[in-house]
This record gives sequence, structure tokens and C-alpha cells, in this order.
Amino acid sequence: MKTTELIQQIQKKKSFLCIGLDVDLNKIPQHLLKEEDPIFAFNKAIIDATHHLCVSYKPNTAFYEAYGLKGWKALEKTINYLNEKHPEIFTIADAKRGDIGNTSTMYAKAFFEDLAFDSVTVAPYMGKDSVEPFLAFEDKHTILLALTSNQGAFDFQTKTVDGKELYKQVLETSKTWKNSKNLMYVVGATKAEYLADIRKIIPNSFLLVPGVGAQGGNLQDVCKYGMNAHVGLLINSSRGIIYASNNEDFAQVAASKAAELQQEMQTILSK
Amino acid sequence: MKTTELIQQIQKKKSFLCIGLDVDLNKIPQHLLKEEDPIFAFNKAIIDATHHLCVSYKPNTAFYEAYGLKGWKALEKTINYLNEKHPEIFTIADAKRGDIGNTSTMYAKAFFEDLAFDSVTVAPYMGKDSVEPFLAFEDKHTILLALTSNQGAFDFQTKTVDGKELYKQVLETSKTWKNSKNLMYVVGATKAEYLADIRKIIPNSFLLVPGVGAQGGNLQDVCKYGMNAHVGLLINSSRGIIYASNNEDFAQVAASKAAELQQEMQTILSK
Repeated sequence: MKTTELIQQIQKKKSFLCIGLDVDLNKIPQHLLKEEDPIFAFNKAIIDATHHLCVSYKPNTAFYEAYGLKGWKALEKTINYLNEKHPEIFTIADAKRGDIGNTSTMYAKAFFEDLAFDSVTVAPYMGKDSVEPFLAFEDKHTILLALTSNQGAFDFQTKTVDGKELYKQVLETSKTWKNSKNLMYVVGATKAEYLADIRKIIPNSFLLVPGVGAQGGNLQDVCKYGMNAHVGLLINSSRGIIYASNNEDFAQVAASKAAELQQEMQTILSK
Repeated sequence: MKTTELIQQIQKKKSFLCIGLDVDLNKIPQHLLKEEDPIFAFNKAIIDATHHLCVSYKPNTAFYEAYGLKGWKALEKTINYLNEKHPEIFTIADAKRGDIGNTSTMYAKAFFEDLAFDSVTVAPYMGKDSVEPFLAFEDKHTILLALTSNQGAFDFQTKTVDGKELYKQVLETSKTWKNSKNLMYVVGATKAEYLADIRKIIPNSFLLVPGVGAQGGNLQDVCKYGMNAHVGLLINSSRGIIYASNNEDFAQVAASKAAELQQEMQTILSK
């Protein structure tokens, strides 16, 4: 998907919401466990109830891999369902991959070709030749971890490297990589005040912002410091939406939680 | 597997060789493509021919994920075959995972419980709470990326952070994490001269060393600078062994390549 198509969808839906599909069989409504594929049944119900309120879905691969083959199968069914029913929606494989060149190419094939996601999250630790194989794919996006939403972000990411924090070095260095136009970045909402500085380095890039809701981040602050002329933000919420209820009404309740965020976004966009 | 069992096996086999099972369907002997599961057929033949020469196998997950469900199935069959036929062999899921706490727990379950590997490689960028969930598993090992074998290692890993290279900060910081006794580290063979400094920080830890052979690293240099009293090294070779021939004799030729390395290791160990 081209970035312009994502921007059009944001304008049309008056939303820049991304819903995280992090399916844990211990947390989903127990009546779904008698389905043939409870993970997919859960995702399908969430997607059917919320697709008009969001512009993106983001399954985190860990939650699928933990269930082995049946998990991978459910991930495949989920992305196929999205691509078939809602091809306009921007899909993110939250996989945080990265390896030496020829191996990163295999990961890129896994997520861009075999599973046909629009984008994948990638870790920067191994540098240029671990990321460029992902960037080589036309109309696909590589979402590079810059500043994450967890406490561990302060272990290395915010440490000073050659006079500048590591996450800023990552941002600046990544701009020099081949096909860097295909880059987006992960910046945690729990660190909204950092966004003003980040925007000085990457004014035009899309940012995937986790951590609103369950992790304590604030939507107003993120938009104040991080929004650009074409919005440039995808705000992710996972647990706050998909686990808002674990009764039979879970999809309806998820939709009402998503609608609250969409309304808040619409108000911000109309200012 | 306990570290003492790994050390015993090294002494018994006079080998500290790890064989990388990075199966690319474009590179394996073409007669295998008519098998029901060519990836597993290839791995089984390699394992049957080489298991007495090595102490560890390391499938890189990228090569399995690239083939989707059938790839994941082949990975599952491979680890099950190893655990059933050769339970004394140390198995490594080269997955380079890492995510926020609850999500890393799901990855740990995927590789330690569902697939029952002895260890998994993990990226350090997200810090303590992204790694500790892996360390919480008893008798399982977390192999943290420190200094990788690729050119991109110089983008961030060797940059100076608070007066010390980032990879050294990673080594030192990781020692303070809970259950750090379960840590091993990835250190590329292409940077053998760095090993002396690394051993000052982590004298007793096992190092997984990729990059010998195809990537240009030298076994003698790695041992000179990196070996400790209980060896403390796992030297990985992938392409140099498994793709030494792509004819029907591939497993035999792989075994002879593995035997060359094992002989070289035996000579070093006897000094």
C-alpha cells in the first residue's frame, strides 16, 4: 500500500487508530474456545465490529507463535481475511525482526510475500544491512524501533552516543539507508514529550505509537508533539479495546472503546 | 539443558561445533524437492550424517517463516526429531526476538515450551524487561546479541556510549539482570580481536560465534582470544557445511566438512 492511500483513509474515516490483535487464549471470552479456531474467531469478530473505526490492524506475532502451528495458521487466516474483506486497511506484522542481509530477506519474504502484510516492525541493533533488505520491497513499509514504550527503553535507547541519544542516532542514520522513504518508526506514547525533538529529525515519516491506554500514554500529548501536516501518526491500542469485555458482547464493547478513541481523534483532526 | 551437560558433551565429542540449519529451497539438492517435506528431509539427512561431530544445531527461524505454514511445520518436525533422537544436543532457535515484557513471555513460550528448544537468540535494543521474561525459564538459555558478524554492526554496536562501546554496555548491563546466569552471547567471528576485551567483562559465559567460514572469520583467532577454561565457545557454521554439495552426496560432503572443523577443534582442545 502507498502512503498516500493510508493518508486518504485517515481523512475519510477521521481516524488514525491502529488496533493491536494480541490474542491470548486466557483472556478471550471463554465461549470462543469451543470454536474450531478460537484465535481467528476472536479476530474476525473484532475486525467485523471495528473496521470502520480504524485504519490499521497490528497482530503481534509473539501471540501467534506461542500457539505453534495453530497460531501461525490463525495469523495467516487473519491477514487473508483482512486483505480480502478490507484491502484498504493498512496491516502491520508486529514482529520486531532483523538479521544479517540474506536472512532479513527471508523475513521480508515471510511477511511481505507469504503473509502479504503491508508492513513489518524491525529492530535496528544490527544496522543498515539488516534493515535494507526489508526496504527493497516496493509499496511495503518497514517500521523501525526507535524509542519503545517500555521501561527498558532507558537501558540503551536513551543513552548518549557520540553526543546524541541512541534513538536519535538510529533515526538519523536510517535516513541515509537505501529506500529510506519506505521507513516508518515506533515511538512509544509513554514518552510523548520526546516527540517534538523526533519530529525535527523525521518531520514527514509516519510514527506507530504504542502505549496509549493500558501502558499510560496520553493521546492529546502525542498529537500535540507528534502530528504533522498529513497526520503522520498511527496510534495503537490493543488490550484497552480487544479485552474491554470478555463476555459474549466483547466485539460490541471493543467497538464502543474504538469509537471513543475515533471520536477523540475526529475532534483533534477538526481543530 | 544445564550448562554442565553442554560442557560434558564438548569434552566427550572433542567438538564445540554448532551447525546452522538455514534451509533455502533454492539451494538444497533438487532431488529432495519431490519429498513430501523437502525442508525436513534435508535437515534429517544433515543431522543423521553430522550429529556425532557437533554439539549444537541452530535453525534460523527466518528460513522457516519464509515458507509459511509448511516452513513452521518443518521447524517443528526438526526440533522434535532432535529432541527425540539426540536429546544431548544443545538446540538454538536463532530467532532474534525481543518485545515488551508480556509479549516476550509469549515468545519464550513459543520457543521453550511449544517448540522445546534449549535456547533462543534475543536482541537487546528494548532493554531489561524485554529480556528477563526469557531468563525466567529454568535450564533454558537466552543468547543475547552483543557484537554481530555483519557490516551493520558498526552502525550502532561499536559506537561509544557513555565512554564505552554499545556492545560492551549491553554485556555489562545484562549481567545485572535477574537470572543472568542463563545468558549466553552472540559475538561474530569476523571481529575475533574484540574477544579479548569481551572476555574481561564476561569471562565465564558461553559465546555463540557465527561468521566462521562463509563470512570470513578464522577459528584459530576466535579460540586464541575467546576460549575460557571450560571452552565457552559454540562456533557456528551454516552454508560452509550444509551447502558444501548440492548433489545426492550432500549429507556425506556436509559430514566431511563438519569433520574438518571437528578435527581442527580437537587439535586446539588437546593443546
